[in-house]
Amino acid sequence: MENNLFHLQYAIDTFYFLVCGALVMWMAAGFAMLESGLVRAKNTTEILTKNVALFAIACTMYLVCGYAIMYDGNLFLSGMGAVDVDGVLGDFAGREGGFEGGSIYSGASDFFFQVVFVATAMSIVSGAVAERMKLWAFLLFAVVMTGFIYPMEGAWTWGGAEVFGLYSLGDLGFSDFAGSGIVHMAGAAAALAGVILLGARKGKYGPNGEIRAFPGANLPLATLGTFILWMGWFGFNGGSVLKLGDVASAHSVAMVFLNTNAAAAGGAIAALITARLMFGKADLTMLLNGALAGLVVITAEPSTPSALTATLFGALGGVLVVLSIVTMDKLRIDDPVGAISVHGVCGLLGLLLVPFTNDGSSFSGQIIGAITIFVWVFVASLIVWGIIKAVVGLRVSDEDEYEGVDLSECGMEAYPEFVSTK
Amino acid sequence: MENNLFHLQYAIDTFYFLVCGALVMWMAAGFAMLESGLVRAKNTTEILTKNVALFAIACTMYLVCGYAIMYDGNLFLSGMGAVDVDGVLGDFAGREGGFEGGSIYSGASDFFFQVVFVATAMSIVSGAVAERMKLWAFLLFAVVMTGFIYPMEGAWTWGGAEVFGLYSLGDLGFSDFAGSGIVHMAGAAAALAGVILLGARKGKYGPNGEIRAFPGANLPLATLGTFILWMGWFGFNGGSVLKLGDVASAHSVAMVFLNTNAAAAGGAIAALITARLMFGKADLTMLLNGALAGLVVITAEPSTPSALTATLFGALGGVLVVLSIVTMDKLRIDDPVGAISVHGVCGLLGLLLVPFTNDGSSFSGQIIGAITIFVWVFVASLIVWGIIKAVVGLRVSDEDEYEGVDLSECGMEAYPEFVSTK
Amino acid sequence: MENNLFHLQYAIDTFYFLVCGALVMWMAAGFAMLESGLVRAKNTTEILTKNVALFAIACTMYLVCGYAIMYDGNLFLSGMGAVDVDGVLGDFAGREGGFEGGSIYSGASDFFFQVVFVATAMSIVSGAVAERMKLWAFLLFAVVMTGFIYPMEGAWTWGGAEVFGLYSLGDLGFSDFAGSGIVHMAGAAAALAGVILLGARKGKYGPNGEIRAFPGANLPLATLGTFILWMGWFGFNGGSVLKLGDVASAHSVAMVFLNTNAAAAGGAIAALITARLMFGKADLTMLLNGALAGLVVITAEPSTPSALTATLFGALGGVLVVLSIVTMDKLRIDDPVGAISVHGVCGLLGLLLVPFTNDGSSFSGQIIGAITIFVWVFVASLIVWGIIKAVVGLRVSDEDEYEGVDLSECGMEAYPEFVSTK
Repeated sequence: MENNLFHLQYAIDTFYFLVCGALVMWMAAGFAMLESGLVRAKNTTEILTKNVALFAIACTMYLVCGYAIMYDGNLFLSGMGAVDVDGVLGDFAGREGGFEGGSIYSGASDFFFQVVFVATAMSIVSGAVAERMKLWAFLLFAVVMTGFIYPMEGAWTWGGAEVFGLYSLGDLGFSDFAGSGIVHMAGAAAALAGVILLGARKGKYGPNGEIRAFPGANLPLATLGTFILWMGWFGFNGGSVLKLGDVASAHSVAMVFLNTNAAAAGGAIAALITARLMFGKADLTMLLNGALAGLVVITAEPSTPSALTATLFGALGGVLVVLSIVTMDKLRIDDPVGAISVHGVCGLLGLLLVPFTNDGSSFSGQIIGAITIFVWVFVASLIVWGIIKAVVGLRVSDEDEYEGVDLSECGMEAYPEFVSTK
Repeated sequence: MENNLFHLQYAIDTFYFLVCGALVMWMAAGFAMLESGLVRAKNTTEILTKNVALFAIACTMYLVCGYAIMYDGNLFLSGMGAVDVDGVLGDFAGREGGFEGGSIYSGASDFFFQVVFVATAMSIVSGAVAERMKLWAFLLFAVVMTGFIYPMEGAWTWGGAEVFGLYSLGDLGFSDFAGSGIVHMAGAAAALAGVILLGARKGKYGPNGEIRAFPGANLPLATLGTFILWMGWFGFNGGSVLKLGDVASAHSVAMVFLNTNAAAAGGAIAALITARLMFGKADLTMLLNGALAGLVVITAEPSTPSALTATLFGALGGVLVVLSIVTMDKLRIDDPVGAISVHGVCGLLGLLLVPFTNDGSSFSGQIIGAITIFVWVFVASLIVWGIIKAVVGLRVSDEDEYEGVDLSECGMEAYPEFVSTK
Repeated sequence: MENNLFHLQYAIDTFYFLVCGALVMWMAAGFAMLESGLVRAKNTTEILTKNVALFAIACTMYLVCGYAIMYDGNLFLSGMGAVDVDGVLGDFAGREGGFEGGSIYSGASDFFFQVVFVATAMSIVSGAVAERMKLWAFLLFAVVMTGFIYPMEGAWTWGGAEVFGLYSLGDLGFSDFAGSGIVHMAGAAAALAGVILLGARKGKYGPNGEIRAFPGANLPLATLGTFILWMGWFGFNGGSVLKLGDVASAHSVAMVFLNTNAAAAGGAIAALITARLMFGKADLTMLLNGALAGLVVITAEPSTPSALTATLFGALGGVLVVLSIVTMDKLRIDDPVGAISVHGVCGLLGLLLVPFTNDGSSFSGQIIGAITIFVWVFVASLIVWGIIKAVVGLRVSDEDEYEGVDLSECGMEAYPEFVSTK
């Protein structure tokens, strides 16, 4: 009987992980639609190619070495032996092991849930460097980011390892429930490094401080992408409870779903109103970014706030993201889809809000953690982008940028039959 | 041991609710894609904006007061204290409470499942009033509809309260499993009130009885939206069993999935054939509306029919929706996406079919219930739309309507690069 | 207590089936988006109509007779009595029955999971015959394919019946976990028969061996479709474990999710590199087909390979699909979406790879099984397509093909406002 109960608990926790993982995988489609809707038509095929390819690269690199680095403290490539997803059945071991109290589930489900997070971090990068980066330079960076840079900071946080053997973020009171910092701000930091080395799109910023709008070519796609991300986020945050099969855990998962949704709603409303006040119109792209900002903010701690608090936290993100996007343009940091504002600036906000509702975290811990993640990912990315720039170059030719990277990189247009005004 | 069993049952029922709720949330994307595919290109950004914003408003208003009105019989705003989604853990109380026989799950999962229903009802409205209503007038209505009008009739039905203290729909034999009337016909009633006050789009109906077709700008989006709704409906109906964790409940959930799918299939085939006979062509938009009609019809009782009966009920909806859409145009009720026919007319049909397979319902109860819901929502909506019309106006200017509401309301085009024939 | 455990196991296994079935249903949307993105704009409405209608037909025909043929060995139409999805509650019988060791779940959930597989097989056909087949001829074929041809070979494989009473594929060591052959190669075989009788699209192949590219009109849709299929495939393969509720089964489901994802990733990367080497560009359509090829290959056995082996198997599919698509064009087999290569050629590869990781299968069994499925479906389809061709004709007129089948078959354009270069 005891044994049968164990079987059921193992099954339900494993299935919960798999369903949540499938939802997070679905976010890859969300990023692809969001980004392909927000770029110009001539750069659409290439960003679609990037989004599919980066997901495939992330899954493969995390399998080959990333997971081992992150959870086994192994800085060298160790292959499947270290991951040992196959060996888990023999001893019923989950990531934390044990029956009473601990999480029990198949290690394969844990890997599946973790691997889609890496892809999310990488997806954030592709939008920011859109419309002017060489495709293969980007994919080369994706190999290093998903196989090394992300797993390193993942090891220091969720993996529990000390930062270069110096200090433990957990001991300092750092807490990032589902990855406002570990996933979203990390992706934004890598993107920022790339954008700085890459420069702005031709014509984006004029000599006298003009900022030209390059409207997205297909807003229904961008909206669809946002809805996909909103849905997938239930898996992203909900699965991060890491356990379903008892009353406290199940209730926690439910609160996480509720708060994730509430924060997205709060972010959407706040951004819509902020944009209306600032620009005089109901700006759809700001509305979408507001919903995403709310989602990023709540990701650092979706289990402890009340639903009204979550709505409020999301709304703070919704206001901040509008201000941040405007500021980025003033700083001439050219981010075609607003990824650095949504995932970076709001990811930081999310980290800083955690101590208001979670006693287990501290402001100092959150700040040190944020700095650790940002500095590591930014500097490491800067070096990798720099090497790629020196060796193969980051940027397409001016002519290719003018004609669109679809033809030069992919040899095909995204909408070959539709007559364009451009 | 007993305690462990309770933990597992609580976990599985909570997770079932959350998965179904996520699927219903996904329907918001379905409505957005369906409606943005069926309007003209120049009104696409605005309807996308409406769909995202109404979902956010619904989530927030239902949290602030709607849920309290619907399930606590509290007609005044009572905030989170009344909802008490946080307090549920202490006493293990679900909506119906108790361990043996009753439903056990986290109150937070119940709220999450309920809140996405409100958004569905509101999504129905946006399509019907498309292409000529002011955005902010619509959002104002959304606040009242999701915070008050829907929760009131929800209280009389699923909430178990008496209608204005006069009579109990449950005692009269009214049964509406997942909301053919409570959600779908209610949304259509609010839409009808709005359409009547708003009037038809310019040029839709000519002086000599001409009816001009305004074809949808993007049929792949409309098809995608229909598939999304079809998928999300498994959560809508399947979750409405309200319990999974025993043999009878689990089998009921399975029958609901099966019948929901069968009815959609029946509706699609019947509408395709009906349209072929009436118009001579395989009309895609009628095919899509037929599938949706089948889904709406079966929603009132998806658990008791056999699968063949469900297919037949869906087929009745598929025929009816084609006839209804044609009739609405003859009556000069201008509903760009056919929402009133799909959700209103077929929602009523669904209610009336319940007693054929469910002994617990009566025809008189279904009729009184339908009248109660329709009259309440229609009259209340008419008043609210009327007030909004008087204060801020419902309709955009003729010039804005001609140029498209995307530019006047949102300041951006949905497809800025594609050359339009219009 | 024993009884309560049984309840929970029944509930979790039923729910697992339903969630996986909903994901497979979602694949119908994936095929619709993939195919509508890869055809020319003038043929988009028609392929959308086909995809929705074939799904509805598949669901209805499998209910009316297909399931009975496949699992009751009943070659004649027997209606719901034979399916008996309603009767299952009384005796707690699942497809394999029994409590200890056997699968326990609602028969309705089994039917729901099975029915969406039929639709998948049929969806494969629609892409291959796109842009020149009469809509109603196609739907007529769908009736026979989903009601008879597929269920017959399904009976010989998953149904356990002997092939025409002569030999048992199971006894010969044939194993096809989730249907690389039974579903995917079968669909491709039916498609190939149709394409041969139908001929190539006008202008596709020139008199001097020229092969003209007809680029897909909307690549974001094709990419979305691929992501949808990728996600839905977790249900397709994951649900085919047929049981979740014990440690070994749950771990197997987790390995299936992991391997399905790994194979898609491997296929995508391999196809991207292969296309780059062969064509000099990062070909998005080949990347998409590579991911799908990886998914098809692993479908025959996703539970026994290690994740790295699954990645490798997927990569083999990714290389093969590019070579196959090029070869098909050289053979003048005109398949607008590459369905025969993705599902047929890679489905066969999947079958042949099974014995490398699954001792319960044999190469001779796999070969005999593949021949049995292919010959049956191809010959039966050839006869049915031939009869339809003789009676109503398969192909639209040259003029309708030139103008696009959207207007002639459906009476409406998919993108009526966008100015086309064609």
